[in-house]
Amino acid sequence: MVQPCPAAAGMTVDTIETPALVVDLDTYERNLDRMAAILHDKPVRLRPHAKTHKSPAIALDQIARGAVGACSQKISEAEILVAGGIKDVLISNQVVGAAKIARVAALASRARIGICVDDAGNARDLGAAAVAAGNRIDVLVEIEVGGQRCGVAPGAAAVELARIVASTSGLRFRGLQAYHGGAQHIRDHAERRDAIERAAESTRTTIAALKEAGLECPIVAGGGTGSLMIDLELGVLNELQAGSYIFMDADYGAAGTTGLAPGFENSLFVLATVMSAPRPGIAIADAGLKAMTFESGPPRVEKPAGIRYAGPSDEHGNLELAPGLSLSLGDRLWLIPGHCDPTVNLYDWYVGVRGDRVERIWPVAARGAGA
Amino acid sequence: MVQPCPAAAGMTVDTIETPALVVDLDTYERNLDRMAAILHDKPVRLRPHAKTHKSPAIALDQIARGAVGACSQKISEAEILVAGGIKDVLISNQVVGAAKIARVAALASRARIGICVDDAGNARDLGAAAVAAGNRIDVLVEIEVGGQRCGVAPGAAAVELARIVASTSGLRFRGLQAYHGGAQHIRDHAERRDAIERAAESTRTTIAALKEAGLECPIVAGGGTGSLMIDLELGVLNELQAGSYIFMDADYGAAGTTGLAPGFENSLFVLATVMSAPRPGIAIADAGLKAMTFESGPPRVEKPAGIRYAGPSDEHGNLELAPGLSLSLGDRLWLIPGHCDPTVNLYDWYVGVRGDRVERIWPVAARGAGA
Repeated sequence: MVQPCPAAAGMTVDTIETPALVVDLDTYERNLDRMAAILHDKPVRLRPHAKTHKSPAIALDQIARGAVGACSQKISEAEILVAGGIKDVLISNQVVGAAKIARVAALASRARIGICVDDAGNARDLGAAAVAAGNRIDVLVEIEVGGQRCGVAPGAAAVELARIVASTSGLRFRGLQAYHGGAQHIRDHAERRDAIERAAESTRTTIAALKEAGLECPIVAGGGTGSLMIDLELGVLNELQAGSYIFMDADYGAAGTTGLAPGFENSLFVLATVMSAPRPGIAIADAGLKAMTFESGPPRVEKPAGIRYAGPSDEHGNLELAPGLSLSLGDRLWLIPGHCDPTVNLYDWYVGVRGDRVERIWPVAARGAGA
Repeated sequence: MVQPCPAAAGMTVDTIETPALVVDLDTYERNLDRMAAILHDKPVRLRPHAKTHKSPAIALDQIARGAVGACSQKISEAEILVAGGIKDVLISNQVVGAAKIARVAALASRARIGICVDDAGNARDLGAAAVAAGNRIDVLVEIEVGGQRCGVAPGAAAVELARIVASTSGLRFRGLQAYHGGAQHIRDHAERRDAIERAAESTRTTIAALKEAGLECPIVAGGGTGSLMIDLELGVLNELQAGSYIFMDADYGAAGTTGLAPGFENSLFVLATVMSAPRPGIAIADAGLKAMTFESGPPRVEKPAGIRYAGPSDEHGNLELAPGLSLSLGDRLWLIPGHCDPTVNLYDWYVGVRGDRVERIWPVAARGAGA
């Protein structure tokens, strides 16, 4: 259920109730501008992934800087994006089941809707639903380019599925989805580059095979924040789906992605409070497993300096302090979450701050939209 | 923001939209009854922890079976429990900051409210707020019994803080909070027993020191599902705070807790759907990092048999199938989450099922109530 907002515009930052999901607006806007600058003279489109932020307001900020629309990962997310004013949404994922497929087809009455498929039966189901709704759905065939997740094999299998899509009423074959999720976070830059190069090679081969089969492939989609500069250099993808660049996180920091995509900075924080300082060298924060997710490791403590977030329990964070340092009850902590996307999904509200003031409050509109 | 409910009472289970948080009502009720039977002739009170379920409806089910009230971990949770009809809530944690402390004091007008302290200044702030509100707050002094989290040292430090509480207007010293969170999940049963025995010994010593100082200690609170049978045998705690027993999870399963507290069964599931079956031996579920938390490991696949949840990404779960097994798009999966508490906190709705029917839908009313 929706919880009360932890702040109001005009308040000072030190009165925000914690834990809170805080966006440093100056940094967030610099990240948006930086991406626009990086892509300015490149022959690619940007369709940022809304699974990071789950917010039509942020998608509109991205579109205002040149993005062509948004990606969502779920039909429920897509519905919320469209309701929030986004007119062009790619569901960069498979949607199965009659009820959800009917929702995809219905949504195509209200916006331009694309979707990914990796199964012929699923494609036919989507086509039938689109015909029943009197709409047409754009389809990308997803190929497996090393992520070992969804997607048909590159080459012949992709061509076969593309042929089925192209010949199915209600569908329009638009190209390929070629995303390598796992590669985004590979720590070793040479290994990451190698994985992305192999993905690009699979994609190139598939585009050529499609062409040979008489199928044009206007959209070649994929990419993330961790592969951005490599994707631009390789030039195979023409529609990029990076999402995390607006916020960044401790895992991308540890993966040296800031170095790869120069200039993206941490703009997203979990603001926490010291609730206990029971022994020298130790303090306890009011933010644990329900305030951040930990599958990519603990948060980094941005402020104050000299503090390590040693480990969580459900509602506690154990802090280890550098020698000589002490914290008092009520002291504030600025935590950079390990992984931005699932952490955002824990909160109902973004608290946007500029300097020491709360400036903008907006909902995480698609929080919990997992269906 | 609140998402639409994935089911309605009367529907068949196979029409629940996924991912969904499903409670098997027969099993859930057996767990409730089992706890009542275990405690039936024991000189202890049960105050189950609502941080597990975040639901006044479940707290009322527990009270109907003899629980004396509920624990919460946050003031926001306590407010929602009281609004839902719970008349006796212990906030088994520290609450700091003037605004939150005023909320604690205000809530004591509407229900019996207890709280834990481990700091003299915090105790004085609570007392002043209670006096200002014309109320009285019950206080347990939290002692550190091995969990290395909040709490003053057992013995003299606890007596000193208890004296301050007892002499502070607006507060009533009621006893000790002596919870060893970390011990609940220790895999080796002898080690777990050893940790709990040491916690009990620290607690016993502190009770004796309080008595010597002329302070009665009517409540000695703590305990969890993982230490239940040991706590009952040792007989030091007289108010037990177990929470997970209603649902259980894969981590408690791996820790052999079912063996220690005979009869508690997994009643909580994340219902998921196969969204892609791209290669032999592999399938992809529609439930990943936003449908469960993974800090205690991946979910166990309860049904169908022969499937291992190998790893998540944000909205995907990679499944490995036993040789010869295959899954089709749309097939359902019953997943036992690694850790029940933070997984529940991802969902707006419980879907209660009995046999193949949805029987009861109720909100996760305190979802996201982290403040």
